[in-house]
Amino acid sequence: MIVVMKIGATKDDMDGVCKRAEELGFTPHIIYGKERNVVGLVGVMGNREEALMLENYSGVDKVVKISKPYKLASREVKQDSSVVDVCGVRFGGRDIVVIAGPCSVESEKQIVMVAEQVKAAGAKMLRGGAFKPRTSPYAFQGLGEEGLKLLAKAREVTGLPIVTEVVNPVDVDLVYKYTDMFQVGARNIQNFALLTFLGQAKKPVLLKRGMSTTIDEFLMATEYILSEGNRDVVLCERGIRTFETSTRNTLDISCVPVVKAKSHLPIVVDPSHAAGHWGYVSSLSKAAIAAGADGLLVEVHPEPEKAMSDGAQSLNPNQFITLMGELRAVAIAVGRYM
Amino acid sequence: MIVVMKIGATKDDMDGVCKRAEELGFTPHIIYGKERNVVGLVGVMGNREEALMLENYSGVDKVVKISKPYKLASREVKQDSSVVDVCGVRFGGRDIVVIAGPCSVESEKQIVMVAEQVKAAGAKMLRGGAFKPRTSPYAFQGLGEEGLKLLAKAREVTGLPIVTEVVNPVDVDLVYKYTDMFQVGARNIQNFALLTFLGQAKKPVLLKRGMSTTIDEFLMATEYILSEGNRDVVLCERGIRTFETSTRNTLDISCVPVVKAKSHLPIVVDPSHAAGHWGYVSSLSKAAIAAGADGLLVEVHPEPEKAMSDGAQSLNPNQFITLMGELRAVAIAVGRYM
Amino acid sequence: MIVVMKIGATKDDMDGVCKRAEELGFTPHIIYGKERNVVGLVGVMGNREEALMLENYSGVDKVVKISKPYKLASREVKQDSSVVDVCGVRFGGRDIVVIAGPCSVESEKQIVMVAEQVKAAGAKMLRGGAFKPRTSPYAFQGLGEEGLKLLAKAREVTGLPIVTEVVNPVDVDLVYKYTDMFQVGARNIQNFALLTFLGQAKKPVLLKRGMSTTIDEFLMATEYILSEGNRDVVLCERGIRTFETSTRNTLDISCVPVVKAKSHLPIVVDPSHAAGHWGYVSSLSKAAIAAGADGLLVEVHPEPEKAMSDGAQSLNPNQFITLMGELRAVAIAVGRYM
Amino acid sequence: MIVVMKIGATKDDMDGVCKRAEELGFTPHIIYGKERNVVGLVGVMGNREEALMLENYSGVDKVVKISKPYKLASREVKQDSSVVDVCGVRFGGRDIVVIAGPCSVESEKQIVMVAEQVKAAGAKMLRGGAFKPRTSPYAFQGLGEEGLKLLAKAREVTGLPIVTEVVNPVDVDLVYKYTDMFQVGARNIQNFALLTFLGQAKKPVLLKRGMSTTIDEFLMATEYILSEGNRDVVLCERGIRTFETSTRNTLDISCVPVVKAKSHLPIVVDPSHAAGHWGYVSSLSKAAIAAGADGLLVEVHPEPEKAMSDGAQSLNPNQFITLMGELRAVAIAVGRYM
Repeated sequence: MIVVMKIGATKDDMDGVCKRAEELGFTPHIIYGKERNVVGLVGVMGNREEALMLENYSGVDKVVKISKPYKLASREVKQDSSVVDVCGVRFGGRDIVVIAGPCSVESEKQIVMVAEQVKAAGAKMLRGGAFKPRTSPYAFQGLGEEGLKLLAKAREVTGLPIVTEVVNPVDVDLVYKYTDMFQVGARNIQNFALLTFLGQAKKPVLLKRGMSTTIDEFLMATEYILSEGNRDVVLCERGIRTFETSTRNTLDISCVPVVKAKSHLPIVVDPSHAAGHWGYVSSLSKAAIAAGADGLLVEVHPEPEKAMSDGAQSLNPNQFITLMGELRAVAIAVGRYM
Repeated sequence: MIVVMKIGATKDDMDGVCKRAEELGFTPHIIYGKERNVVGLVGVMGNREEALMLENYSGVDKVVKISKPYKLASREVKQDSSVVDVCGVRFGGRDIVVIAGPCSVESEKQIVMVAEQVKAAGAKMLRGGAFKPRTSPYAFQGLGEEGLKLLAKAREVTGLPIVTEVVNPVDVDLVYKYTDMFQVGARNIQNFALLTFLGQAKKPVLLKRGMSTTIDEFLMATEYILSEGNRDVVLCERGIRTFETSTRNTLDISCVPVVKAKSHLPIVVDPSHAAGHWGYVSSLSKAAIAAGADGLLVEVHPEPEKAMSDGAQSLNPNQFITLMGELRAVAIAVGRYM
Repeated sequence: MIVVMKIGATKDDMDGVCKRAEELGFTPHIIYGKERNVVGLVGVMGNREEALMLENYSGVDKVVKISKPYKLASREVKQDSSVVDVCGVRFGGRDIVVIAGPCSVESEKQIVMVAEQVKAAGAKMLRGGAFKPRTSPYAFQGLGEEGLKLLAKAREVTGLPIVTEVVNPVDVDLVYKYTDMFQVGARNIQNFALLTFLGQAKKPVLLKRGMSTTIDEFLMATEYILSEGNRDVVLCERGIRTFETSTRNTLDISCVPVVKAKSHLPIVVDPSHAAGHWGYVSSLSKAAIAAGADGLLVEVHPEPEKAMSDGAQSLNPNQFITLMGELRAVAIAVGRYM
Repeated sequence: MIVVMKIGATKDDMDGVCKRAEELGFTPHIIYGKERNVVGLVGVMGNREEALMLENYSGVDKVVKISKPYKLASREVKQDSSVVDVCGVRFGGRDIVVIAGPCSVESEKQIVMVAEQVKAAGAKMLRGGAFKPRTSPYAFQGLGEEGLKLLAKAREVTGLPIVTEVVNPVDVDLVYKYTDMFQVGARNIQNFALLTFLGQAKKPVLLKRGMSTTIDEFLMATEYILSEGNRDVVLCERGIRTFETSTRNTLDISCVPVVKAKSHLPIVVDPSHAAGHWGYVSSLSKAAIAAGADGLLVEVHPEPEKAMSDGAQSLNPNQFITLMGELRAVAIAVGRYM
């Protein structure tokens, strides 16, 4: 950490900072500048959190953090890219992985039909929500365990591994029984109780970025899972909240190369929630693959206009087939396969 | 809801929209414009969510929602302001309520001392965290039940009712045993499992706005609690996330008059989390009262520079005493008491 | 426009709205709902701006705009895509156009050298700033007319058409003498005096989106140029300001398909200003082409580490050659050429 | 500036950074950490802008700026608060200054009437727009010089000094002839050509924060004016653009104490543009005074429902009288007068 002193800070001010830094386990190093001085705090064992309080000390202008707050997710610590394996489907390798399916599981007929359709088109995993966090208590909240059973049925029929959301720490064991991969939704990116439970579970996790989560915080959230011993985390960019209202969220496409630079973990993109409208899904999907994403999470519904949730952003099966063909061309153009 | 047709939409397009609207339980009313037509969908029993899907229909430009998504929180439905009573402390009445205390409960000595200090200065309730949601898994996470016991001890000594955060639905029963009011933190504003449990609990709830929650979503979140039967909800504005980095968050002071206009529920302001720096707390506190807030949630620590969390934004007891004097003057100026 | 009445609005309230609507040149049409009523205002000649004031009338909840504020830029009005021709370089056709060059023109040697390098790599136009709007008055502000002359010299040598920024209405005539296309920077997107002058000038305009400009406002800004008679406008997405700080701005990749859906005008992407770091430029460039952009604006400098401005985001010539090869593959994958 | 090296950076990497730092006029000081090293760059004469390019050097993680980019506006440089005098009206002293008037000057009758009304209520200056920057080219753009003459007439009648917006550098001389204070609107905060002209003009400037301008950039913009020799700058917070849509902009009330801490310049608040709705103006005005603002800029129109622009956010004269009474009470509560 670096403590920046004010112009005109006195020697007593400097001494006060250095004394406190030593109490906190750091070795202070002063750099005397022409205008102002700065104090570098050296030592990995120092109490970083309390050191931030030095901003309240006399003569201090601000405290600047130098080290990254995340460790296990950092590419500085682990330089080679991680591959996360979900029943043989590999995220972060040469192949692009497309996960597809409806927002909500609605019926056996619906989920089995769409599973067969997306498999035929080339999807490698099936998605579907059984527990739905909805902004309104008056909206459809999902089928619960019944939905999980229907997902398992669709897997049995198609062989596609499944991913489904868990929203409540108490449901982790239940969802574990059925799913191949846990999904953490954008609203739960800082539900640390849930993240800790998933860190102890023995199945991979698909972690969605929150609507107002910075990339640094996104990587910090993975640390909750990684530090409990579960190293199988796939990140998912799904759009952030900005002033723009033409799309449901603003897809932060830069998140893909930034995460690749800062972390060794795989990252996929959810163009459906980002766009909020099926008409933009194709364009954003191609952009994601071109930008270097390891996969996609695409909403597909047999009859979007009758979906019980998020129909406006779902592709129908024919649109999905067309999209998959287009994506293959882009994947090859950037040296990937699918 | 209003369906806006495209310029050049055909009669067949109009008929398709009207037919679907009727299937969904609405009575369609067409307004023929010079440039384009619009179709009003009338009927409270219509399926609003599926009606949004009409955006996918041929000739449709967009669908505009007219009704507000929240009902029980709306001032249109209940015109007189609600007062929430917490052990005799009344939010939403004539008096300004100041809740004060440390970010985290750290020890009996700390919490009892600060409780006595803030009571002497005029605070009406004590705050303190036993379960702390922290961005980093390596940071102090709170004392858990031990912290709740220490809060109860401080209440016993001072008589101040207490409010403390609950972060996990499984902890609701435990926290219920000790607290007088539940606090829901900004990160949990859309933790609907938690909100539903609190809607069934029989104690008041202090609900903090999320970092990227719109005011409409904020009011929708209260609906989860209200619709389960718990009508004792106090809202708390604590800053939103924007591009500005001089403060930890951007205090949306307008949230106070907007909530007052749209809802009958009381609202308080947390200047400490908004500012992120004690030096700005006084200014924001006075602004909040002047804007019409029903109270404040202020972080006070006996020794902020040694706090285990959020020390930079905590006032020390002397600063708090000064603040309370200033606030009384502002409260009187706007016709309130404290 | 639609006037939404409050629940409980009286007949007098309705009459007041209808009366005022008629005064403003509209024909009011009432839709009686179960909960509340709405009044549709019909008529293209009505005074839309004053009609917004109906929000202040008794019993009115809000006024909703239905028509789009832009006309000439709208795809509803002109359905086939526009092609903008700059000395034979065509934006919006089958070919992807890459414009490349340094942030600032620094010397004849620099600009001629980089022009030759980017031409050899396949760029179709040369960019370079002579008038630089800088956040700090103490930073390099550009060479002014001398810079324009050097750009013209580089054009003479290479045959590449040039685009350069104009920041002040009084400079329009001067810049006109040298440039083939005017560039309006993000900071001037609402400099309406400048836009009006450019609408009267007889050369194409490259209009950059502002940091906090919505797509609707972006299209409204083109209206200033189009409505003065200049139909040769190319839009440029260059990132918006959000809470994320890992990149200089957040590239709103969705802007590409949204503009394509709403407008007939061509759109290009500036990955350099969006990223703020050369390491992310390749990834964002490929994403832009894959998303459907008609071209790119890329910063290239012979020696980025010695650039007088924006060096951190500039590619060196070798990096640019590599990028162009990658982009060709992506362009072909999405059915375009370059 | 501080250059943060990567974990694992080599001695050669360090040497490369130090060598380049010296070329740029800095003296490098290395702090050897346990995990990573940092290099402090000392020297006020070093080329700060090129030093940022060190981020591209091998082994470098990032470059952190330490010094503030603004000098003349900084309270570190000038510790006592500045008072700006406009024809005897003093901003930044003991008294709160309320500037009031319509968005646009529409007619002699309108502007003279409202000038008399706001003067009677206690306003100290008159505002009114003659040149209006409007998002749509089809909206009313102001009366131009005719409007300036009418403002001068209103001043003659009432004695109130006037402030009016200038949007184009070529109009500075014209506006100078009539106005007592120039206003720079939010859209022109980075119109550096305009700021430079105003820095050379000999009249005070009211500088509005842009919709997406950080406070640091806001202070940098003042530097353009101050560094040209004009020290009479009053800042104006008028709301920033965020995801929240209940208000036209989000009033960043924290801007008041932050500017007071970082700068010696006076700051006022425009609650009308922030709110976008007259119903919230009173609440925000009181908050602004309570937060420490030196004044207000309030829109008042004799008949808001017939205003040619921004009527929805204008108070009528009676509402303004009420507001002024309320504000006096708040001003006294915080130790100010008006």
